[in-house]
Formats: sequence, structure tokens, C-alpha cells
Amino acid sequence: MAHKIGLVGLGRMGANMARRMKDCGHEVVVVHDLRKEVADELAAELACEAAPDLAAVTAAADVVFTVVTDDEAMRSIFADDALLKDAAGTVFVNCATISPAMHEEVAASCEAVGAKALEACMASSIPQARDGTLYLMVGGDEAVFRDLESLLKDLSKSLRYIGETGRAAQVKALVNMVMNINTAALAEGLGLGKALGLDLEVLCEVFSQTGANSRVLETDAGDMLVRDHDCYFSAAHAAKDSGIANALAVAAKVDVPLSKATEAQYRRLMDLGRGELDKSAVAELTFPGRLDDA
Amino acid sequence: MAHKIGLVGLGRMGANMARRMKDCGHEVVVVHDLRKEVADELAAELACEAAPDLAAVTAAADVVFTVVTDDEAMRSIFADDALLKDAAGTVFVNCATISPAMHEEVAASCEAVGAKALEACMASSIPQARDGTLYLMVGGDEAVFRDLESLLKDLSKSLRYIGETGRAAQVKALVNMVMNINTAALAEGLGLGKALGLDLEVLCEVFSQTGANSRVLETDAGDMLVRDHDCYFSAAHAAKDSGIANALAVAAKVDVPLSKATEAQYRRLMDLGRGELDKSAVAELTFPGRLDDA
Repeated sequence: MAHKIGLVGLGRMGANMARRMKDCGHEVVVVHDLRKEVADELAAELACEAAPDLAAVTAAADVVFTVVTDDEAMRSIFADDALLKDAAGTVFVNCATISPAMHEEVAASCEAVGAKALEACMASSIPQARDGTLYLMVGGDEAVFRDLESLLKDLSKSLRYIGETGRAAQVKALVNMVMNINTAALAEGLGLGKALGLDLEVLCEVFSQTGANSRVLETDAGDMLVRDHDCYFSAAHAAKDSGIANALAVAAKVDVPLSKATEAQYRRLMDLGRGELDKSAVAELTFPGRLDDA
Repeated sequence: MAHKIGLVGLGRMGANMARRMKDCGHEVVVVHDLRKEVADELAAELACEAAPDLAAVTAAADVVFTVVTDDEAMRSIFADDALLKDAAGTVFVNCATISPAMHEEVAASCEAVGAKALEACMASSIPQARDGTLYLMVGGDEAVFRDLESLLKDLSKSLRYIGETGRAAQVKALVNMVMNINTAALAEGLGLGKALGLDLEVLCEVFSQTGANSRVLETDAGDMLVRDHDCYFSAAHAAKDSGIANALAVAAKVDVPLSKATEAQYRRLMDLGRGELDKSAVAELTFPGRLDDA
């Protein structure tokens, strides 16, 4: 069955997912963003409605993707007079990186009004959203997942059902926790190498061939060397995601000193007014003299 | 020209390097270790001399590989009445992971008596020493390096001249610094995943396909899951190497909070009497309940 698709939260990820679904022939009927001009622009591009409010999204669509910033934004859009108004039968696919507990709270709210919620956690970035090559991990009712599987496949190169609501967000939190630590680690290694006067191209090559190799070495080292911090995944998001993992760790009584140090580094970047730079900007804290350029 | 080769420090790495050189047809004439029975056993295996003291190593060999534990051991073997006795013309190839400053000190001591020193830093582990597939980074006089290049190639799959004395040790310190952080990060992610009740095989697979991927995920994750901490690279060595990097960072005024947290984790393992376990044992600190098994 063809779905009427809505999208809420038209940031870098959400807007590209909308474009991708349209490219694949899906019927994107409505979009919404707090920034009205952003919604109007995308609606014009996709020839669909820019909903005046959230209830209008639910009224127009039967599958609504949400890609918002954080737990607080998530709770606000799922208010009774917002997305959940007359929402019986609607399926919400929640793609933001929020806490596992918030996914559970939203799923319960949806169930109370006869709607369904899936969490679809993305471990990828903006180009992958545009190209339909996301790494998607889904939590929630498996039957609801199977109903949407072919649609979700058009967004992803890897689609995996993880388990009940909250489980995918837990996995996602751990992915970003480890990724953020590895990124901050790389920034320390390269920053110290720079301070020692080493040839950083050689250093990166040695890292790549030894136990220091990592995915973030491939994706972030070059940007750290040349200070190209155009944002794919912001330092503020990194701080938020490491914070989600660290809160899980506190609740589970697991000691995570590296992840705490990593969150502190990203919060320091935010305090310095650089939270909207890419996560690779953590190297600004470790390369000699860079903070003096502010 | 065929070299007469000596080896000092017959731990896991040194003994395997001796075996490899013998396999390749090189003339290993003398070995030495503080543990006399270890030296006697390897000498019998290789049909060479077990030197009664360090001066006897220098007397018998013209190329001496040293693979000792730390800066202190390094300074003691290079005393005037030890390896440096009648050492004019001898080339010392120093393979231990020690501080860059100690490599410089030893090189100066060698020069004072007419001997030569190369640092040959290994970014690999025990099987690679045995198979001659080490990742070797060499610092020191380039002409001395070229003289020994074909011999060193028999020990390595990748051989790279890095620069003046101390430079290779700096690169090595940074490699191990980043590797150790990534290892401790993985232990946090998997330990928290375990505490949350996630399927850790799935979690590792997701890590491998996302920004959380790393070389240590390939080498250490499986061992962390099943607590197989047979030693390839000990927790005590990890603490030492992170400590070398952290001392470089202090001197260079670079802030490395993650590396400091990592050194603290490895020192905690040592304090718990587990310093001789493999570096993967850092997961003992993060998996729920493991410390209770002591």
C-alpha cells in the first residue's frame, strides 16, 4: 500500500530523507519545521504541503517521520494537541537520537491514542540520508516494522530490526559514545603529534596501519589537519549523545571515565561557542595555538 | 656483509625476533636475559651462546638488538661496564617502547664510545615478531639504517625510516596512546551494552559498520566478550606507553584528558593485580560483576 508520508524536523537529516523518499517515488504529502521558511522552501521543492501546525501533519499523512533535536523537542511534538491529535492509525517513525526512555515514553503516548511508534535510529550522516544509504536500526513492534520495511529500505543500505522500543536507541547511544571517544582520542594524538613537530601525514598513515586505526581516522583526521569543520555531525550533538550514554551508564552503575571526559571536551567546545562546528572540531582543543585564533 | 647478531631481552617479542632472524638464515650468535634459564633455553633452541653478562654480548656480536621493558632497564643495560664495554663499531638496534628522551640518551652514550644506536619501534605484537611481519619504524642515523635495512626487512612487513633519534619513539608513543584509548573506549561501550542486556554480538556488528569501528574492535572485542586475556600486549605495558605519551603531552602543554583517563584505567588494573593480563582486560573494569570474581 502506498503511504502518505509526512516529515517533522527539516534539519540536515530530515530534509534529505524527504528528498530521498520523493526520489524513490514515495508520496511525501506534508512537511513541518519550527522555522516556517525552511518548511515552505522544502514544500515548494517537493511540491507538497507545508503544514501550519503539527496536528495538520497527522491529518495529512499516515506515516510521519520525526527528526528533531532532543528529548525536550520530542516530548513537545508528541503533545496531545500536536502530532497525537486524531492520530489513531498513524505510524510515527522517530529518527532523532534521543534517550531510550524518551522513545518508550513516546511509544506509550502513541499507544494510548491508537497510534504506533517505531524508533529508527540512524548511524550515518547527511550524504547517506540524501543517497538512501543510511545505517538504520529499528526498535518497536516487529509487525509495524515489517509493514514499513520496504519504505525504510529505500532510505538505507543496512536496515536492522533490533528489538523492543528503546533497544535501538540504546545501541545508537553506544555507537555514538564509542565514536565520540575515538574522535576525541584522534584529536589528542594528532594534536600532540603537531606539538612535537611530527609530519602529520606520516603519522596518519602509521595510525592507519596499526592498532590506532579507526573509522574516525578515515572520516575526521584530514578535516582535523586542515581545520575543515563544516558540520556533518555537530559538536553539540556529540555532547548530547555522549551525555545520553553517560546517563545510561550512571543508571546501570557502569564506570565510563573516557566517555565522561569526551562529553566534557564537547561541552567545552560548546562553552567556547563552537558547538555548531563538526565533531572533528574537538581537535581545536588539542592542536597547539588553535584556541588563540578565536 | 653477514652480521653476527646478539639479542638482549628475551621476552615474548625478543625471543620471537631471534627465532625469525635464525629462520631467515641470519647468524644469531648470542642471547642474554636477566632470567638465566630463559636465556639458556633459547640459546639451546637456536644453537648459540647464552652470554654470562652484557659485555659478553657486545664481545660476540656486531649487531645487538635490545628489547627490554622500560627506561630504567634501558639505562642499566647501556652502562659503561655492560653493553657499552669495548663497544666501538657495534650497532645497537633498540626495539623496546621507551621514552623518546631515553632513545636520545642511549644514542649519545653509544656515540661517546664509537658505537651506533638505532631506534626500531614496533607497532605490532607477538605473532608478527615470529612471522617477520612487524610494523617497524626506525629513527637514528639514516646511513646506519640503510646498512641494516635488508636485515630489518626480514623482521617486518612494513619498514619505515621516520627521522632522527627519538622521532620513531614519538610516533610509537602516539600510536599506542590512541590504541589504548580506543581499547578502553571499546571496553566502556561493550560493558555498558552488557549492563543494558543487549546482544553483544549484534552490538559488535553494528560497531563494525558504523563510526564506532576501529582496529581494536577487530582485535580485542571478542576477547573482551569471553574474557580471554592471554597476553599479547599487557595492561602494564599499556599503562607505561600511555604514560610516555602523557609525559610528552605535559612537556608540550597539550591537554589530553582521554589519554590520562586511559592511563588511570590501566594503572587501576595493575593495582588490582591484573597488570600482566592483556590490554583487552580493561573490560574487566567495565563489564558488570567481573571485578567481583577476583
